[in-house]
Amino acid sequence: MSDIEIAQANEQKEMQPITTIAAKVGLQEQDIERYGDYKAKIKLTAFENQPLPADHKLILVTSINPTPAGEGKSTVTIGLGDALNKLGAQTMIALREPSLGPVMGMKGGATGGGYAQVVPMEDINLHFTGDMHALTCANNTLAALIDNHIHQGNALNIDQRRISWKRTLDINDRALRHTVIGLGGPFQGIPREDGFNITVASELMAILCLATNIHDLKARIAKILIGYTYDRQPVTVGDLKVQGAIAMLLKDALKPNLVQTLEHTPTLIHGGPFANIAHGCNSILATTAALKLAKYTITECGFGADLGAEKFLDIKTPKLGKHPDAVVIVATVRALKYNGGVALADLKTENIAALEQGFANLKRHIENMQRYGLPVTVAINAFTADTPAEIQRLQALCAELGVQAVNTEVWEKGSEGGKALGEAVLASLTAPVDFKPLYEPETTLTEKIAIIAQQIYGAKDVVYETKAKKQLKTFATNGWDKMPVCMAKTQYSFSDDPKALGAPTGFTLHIREFTPDLGAGFIVALTGNVLTMPGLPKQPAALRMDIADDGTITGLF
Amino acid sequence: MSDIEIAQANEQKEMQPITTIAAKVGLQEQDIERYGDYKAKIKLTAFENQPLPADHKLILVTSINPTPAGEGKSTVTIGLGDALNKLGAQTMIALREPSLGPVMGMKGGATGGGYAQVVPMEDINLHFTGDMHALTCANNTLAALIDNHIHQGNALNIDQRRISWKRTLDINDRALRHTVIGLGGPFQGIPREDGFNITVASELMAILCLATNIHDLKARIAKILIGYTYDRQPVTVGDLKVQGAIAMLLKDALKPNLVQTLEHTPTLIHGGPFANIAHGCNSILATTAALKLAKYTITECGFGADLGAEKFLDIKTPKLGKHPDAVVIVATVRALKYNGGVALADLKTENIAALEQGFANLKRHIENMQRYGLPVTVAINAFTADTPAEIQRLQALCAELGVQAVNTEVWEKGSEGGKALGEAVLASLTAPVDFKPLYEPETTLTEKIAIIAQQIYGAKDVVYETKAKKQLKTFATNGWDKMPVCMAKTQYSFSDDPKALGAPTGFTLHIREFTPDLGAGFIVALTGNVLTMPGLPKQPAALRMDIADDGTITGLF
Repeated sequence: MSDIEIAQANEQKEMQPITTIAAKVGLQEQDIERYGDYKAKIKLTAFENQPLPADHKLILVTSINPTPAGEGKSTVTIGLGDALNKLGAQTMIALREPSLGPVMGMKGGATGGGYAQVVPMEDINLHFTGDMHALTCANNTLAALIDNHIHQGNALNIDQRRISWKRTLDINDRALRHTVIGLGGPFQGIPREDGFNITVASELMAILCLATNIHDLKARIAKILIGYTYDRQPVTVGDLKVQGAIAMLLKDALKPNLVQTLEHTPTLIHGGPFANIAHGCNSILATTAALKLAKYTITECGFGADLGAEKFLDIKTPKLGKHPDAVVIVATVRALKYNGGVALADLKTENIAALEQGFANLKRHIENMQRYGLPVTVAINAFTADTPAEIQRLQALCAELGVQAVNTEVWEKGSEGGKALGEAVLASLTAPVDFKPLYEPETTLTEKIAIIAQQIYGAKDVVYETKAKKQLKTFATNGWDKMPVCMAKTQYSFSDDPKALGAPTGFTLHIREFTPDLGAGFIVALTGNVLTMPGLPKQPAALRMDIADDGTITGLF
Repeated sequence: MSDIEIAQANEQKEMQPITTIAAKVGLQEQDIERYGDYKAKIKLTAFENQPLPADHKLILVTSINPTPAGEGKSTVTIGLGDALNKLGAQTMIALREPSLGPVMGMKGGATGGGYAQVVPMEDINLHFTGDMHALTCANNTLAALIDNHIHQGNALNIDQRRISWKRTLDINDRALRHTVIGLGGPFQGIPREDGFNITVASELMAILCLATNIHDLKARIAKILIGYTYDRQPVTVGDLKVQGAIAMLLKDALKPNLVQTLEHTPTLIHGGPFANIAHGCNSILATTAALKLAKYTITECGFGADLGAEKFLDIKTPKLGKHPDAVVIVATVRALKYNGGVALADLKTENIAALEQGFANLKRHIENMQRYGLPVTVAINAFTADTPAEIQRLQALCAELGVQAVNTEVWEKGSEGGKALGEAVLASLTAPVDFKPLYEPETTLTEKIAIIAQQIYGAKDVVYETKAKKQLKTFATNGWDKMPVCMAKTQYSFSDDPKALGAPTGFTLHIREFTPDLGAGFIVALTGNVLTMPGLPKQPAALRMDIADDGTITGLF
């Protein structure tokens, strides 16, 4: 059975009312806003004034660099949550929201797989509770207000050649990467170059995920840099005086969404910035809600640990006010062999030598997480072609780093297949944790980038291209040169070259340009050719999707 | 108190749970999908197989041409629904969904006013249940699939100079009217001219409002014309094979939304095409649901009766399979005096002569509705400056046409202020109705346009500009020349000149170009300079909007 068939079979037979799921973590009917029978938003008042108990634990799930062989991080995250509940540890899961762009493009749904899924999967993968659309709408309303301001007299003296605020769509649409707008004569606005990002790469998405309440949301929106005046002075949303209207458009999107796994584990799915071009973590509010409501919170971060986990630990953790108590790194025998040079078609053949070579990728991720002082467990996400010899060799390699690697069969068996992993993770939580941030907040932007590039990525040095160098001067002038950094880098490699698999060393990291996200509170550093608007593939997933007369959806997987 | 203050005071104290509202029309909990405590979607299964009782009545509310003086059609519609329920006639209201573009622009909220409002007004005016966003998303997913098809080899041989499918946003954004996309080199797609419409002007919105079930929705989407090949052959969504994916994105948007008035009248708000550039009526499914569930259904259509009512009677009625049993035309003394040449600043002064002159506008609308064989009642929406002499004169002028004109104070007094109107409408329903369509379906496109222009608008003749003439030839070649017509015309005048108030005659109607909406099943005829993407004014309503730390919204009115 495909993922959607398993999900649909379960949805029809076994989903529990969302009020029942809410009650499992002490939420009453008045604490939630129902969206149909199986989805709800949690009101901020339901948890915001509650203290965070000191003995509640946060477990971060991350992975090796993704490969076409598949890793299954969300599946393991969900299966681990189910397993912990099965083991009697009261657990919530906190995930990111899927973006429709990849759903319609290559990836299909993003709600786990097999018997480790969140449901209702069709709703979560499509419009869900409307958060993405509210963000798109707020983002583009701001864009329209900027162009209208210029058209109507430009009292703020905004230089239309230096507008940095882009429009967005939650769609993979390469044709919108570079556009010219405002054509058609004096009644159609001011012609200028523009472009669209995918919504999950937008600053508003980052802000939604970092805001702690409506007041903070509005304050962050007011700080957003939209461009510069003809005198090169920064112009913000606060100057336009529309932070109230934009925050208003996000009032419901700010509330965490509650759903359930196939095994009825309460799951929050809220906020979904991509980890290659944004900070890659679900919202602070959802993670906070989970931490307050459940003894154990399992959360994941995007792509490999070089991107998602680094940003979770360096950007999200300080704002959250709590570091993870343990880290799980997801790996597969297949993906490590791919990292070791095996072609996709040959991955089903046992190959210990390639596994050992590809292990270099996992090894660096393990060491990186240990550098933060965090206990690490490796989850080997099982595939049918894995051989006992491969699994044993992988476990032995991990053991050399003092790390337990646990074979995990949650795709096939649900919580039952994740019990061993759950026990290992619970055991890892007993050791005392001495969390060490990677860098101090007061270091400069370039120092921060150098530390990440050398210590996390394994780079020899960092080179700034001409545009980036010019921007660094502007940042110094405006006092932005000590802000946190959000790296935008290919997810496929530690380096900025997507083809450099394994654990490359001695390379140069190229910083092409920066995007100052003053509202989010960080500077995005764009390396290599990372795209902020994906394109669709030759055979988009949309082509296989359909809906029957009775509303049943097929092809969404 | 402002509209939003009245609404908020009521929402906090008195809104009934949406399950209670649903129960009033016989809907059980399993028939609806709740969106919070006060909004729900009605499942199609809750009413689709139910017969439409022959004695159930449909009342259409329309108005004179809108003026800056204000008419209050939605307010009267809502007040009339409340009044009928108060009079013991079981009534539902069926309205269109507000578009965020005008909400952020000039108009503000669109949920009635004073004590005749639908609530929760903030939710309805902002993202509501996500229908607009689902439409925007489906529309732009289709656009991305088209550009991707061309970029990936263009197997269908689509001529990128002749793509008619435009992108949309639910935003007033003049800078997106005319754009160039696909810039940046061979990896960013094919450069071409493009443009954005406002979502409510999109064909998908029209389709959503005309579809009778998922099967019909998908079949209509498959028929959408997206452009032409290099050999000038039409290309449809069916050729691209993505009707399933696009219909899937609209599966929830297709379900009617249930809310309540301040007096707890069950109200459906579903679908919202503009009446100047689209067909201007709420959805067939919502109107059908109301007709089946309640003895009386009050519905409105957009702008003046020349646009909204003409399209309701000529486009929607045949698909609905039921014509209205009575028509209410909303007028104000102020607006008629404005039509009679009085400046906005002087409207508070009694002026019988101007009223008599401006009455020409109302007179033509009355006669037009009578031409369809429908009983007409005029609702005089009261303003404080109206004098008894003005109201009496207006009533006398209407009486000369055999029409009762009833003073209505629903803004100030709710249902109490609409009782007299309600009684008059109920009385008008006792006369037998002999509904006469304006034109026969088998007449040609140009014959249909001539009939509408001469009989409804009062035009002398119709002139087709060069582009329109060429298109007529294409339509003849493709067999589209007997399709229904959807007129796109300024709402401010019977003519295509927004400044020609009153009841102009002897003018020429200019058809600039056509848009073949094959999925919706009509050809849009664009007259004069009507815009399919509005712009924001110098002081957008967004500037006055705000949200407090506790989530309270201000400035949305």
